[in-house]
Amino acid sequence: MAGHDTTATETVAGFLDGLASEQPTPGGGGAAAISGAMGAALVSMVCNLTIGKKKYAEVEEELKGLREKAEDLRATLTGMIAEDVAAFDAVMGAYGLPKASDDEKAARAEAIQVALRQATDVPLACCRACREVIDLAAVAAEKGNLNVISDAGVAVLSAHAGLRSAALNVYVNAKAITDRDFAEGRLRELNDLLSGTDALTEKTYDVVKAKLS
Amino acid sequence: MAGHDTTATETVAGFLDGLASEQPTPGGGGAAAISGAMGAALVSMVCNLTIGKKKYAEVEEELKGLREKAEDLRATLTGMIAEDVAAFDAVMGAYGLPKASDDEKAARAEAIQVALRQATDVPLACCRACREVIDLAAVAAEKGNLNVISDAGVAVLSAHAGLRSAALNVYVNAKAITDRDFAEGRLRELNDLLSGTDALTEKTYDVVKAKLS
Repeated sequence: MAGHDTTATETVAGFLDGLASEQPTPGGGGAAAISGAMGAALVSMVCNLTIGKKKYAEVEEELKGLREKAEDLRATLTGMIAEDVAAFDAVMGAYGLPKASDDEKAARAEAIQVALRQATDVPLACCRACREVIDLAAVAAEKGNLNVISDAGVAVLSAHAGLRSAALNVYVNAKAITDRDFAEGRLRELNDLLSGTDALTEKTYDVVKAKLS
Repeated sequence: MAGHDTTATETVAGFLDGLASEQPTPGGGGAAAISGAMGAALVSMVCNLTIGKKKYAEVEEELKGLREKAEDLRATLTGMIAEDVAAFDAVMGAYGLPKASDDEKAARAEAIQVALRQATDVPLACCRACREVIDLAAVAAEKGNLNVISDAGVAVLSAHAGLRSAALNVYVNAKAITDRDFAEGRLRELNDLLSGTDALTEKTYDVVKAKLS
């Protein structure tokens, strides 16, 4: 529908064109996934520029583990650019179903609800992954190579923006879900994921700034 | 040197690969530019999905102006992905100059300083552009189409992350500049740009969240 490739094989400029366009996808959900993926990538970069350096031999094993987790999260988050579009399109598709008869109305209402639950779970998974990236970035800022420590600061800011951005899409879609047990369960999980992240992000940013001066 | 295309014609996945790699560019500076550009693109998207709608006729002219500014800033910020790499490479190149004789040492020291001033001005320009995107996103969140208001929230978060990310690169490079008048002037401008943005970002996020519920 958008006429834009909305996967990670799109160019950066092309993705931004699609984001800016009057088409609803890609939108904030895709931007959130990219923010998280940039955070994960920067954690990997800090690890890559620390591992193998004599001065950092003591943290080498820990940073190898960190890099492995960051690369898994980067792959997950990169895949979410397209998942977000698919989830949105499914909601739009369900709203577009026929509603002439009572049977059609019931089938349409049920299809909308199925799509909305999926469109809640996709950004919630993005929140979960971004939260993990924040935790990894905090370790990278503490233990990574001083020469690239600013990149750990950018990592935590990107992941935090990704988390709070994806949260907005959880709120939007959860609101329209009629199964309140489902919706409230997802909102509780979101609150748990958000909990403490503002403080951890600021703490990590301060650690980085202190190391820069 | 990086073996990665580091312009906006790179694919999203390729850019993320380059970010994660053991090469120092692209790094946090490029990520900051993309965050800012995503923010600008999402302001445009909100404008595009508001302009032409009867319900929003009253704000149409204002949002057309907003979109024009957002599109200019998006172009500027997209160009900064490559500028950041060039500025970093220039610093590395200057450090790599010969230093056998006193003349060579003096020429090298001067070349390093020239490159460092440029490597301070590039992220400072990114901060300036991101600050403007934050201001535009605040208006988009106030006046944009309610159906896409979450995208205005993502816009402000992305631009704010871009601003604070680029600020780290200003700190890094300003520190090594021997012309303290230059460095302190740039740090003063940075402080002015940062001033009030945490509060404005939170206020805008709260405006969006309130409209979602």
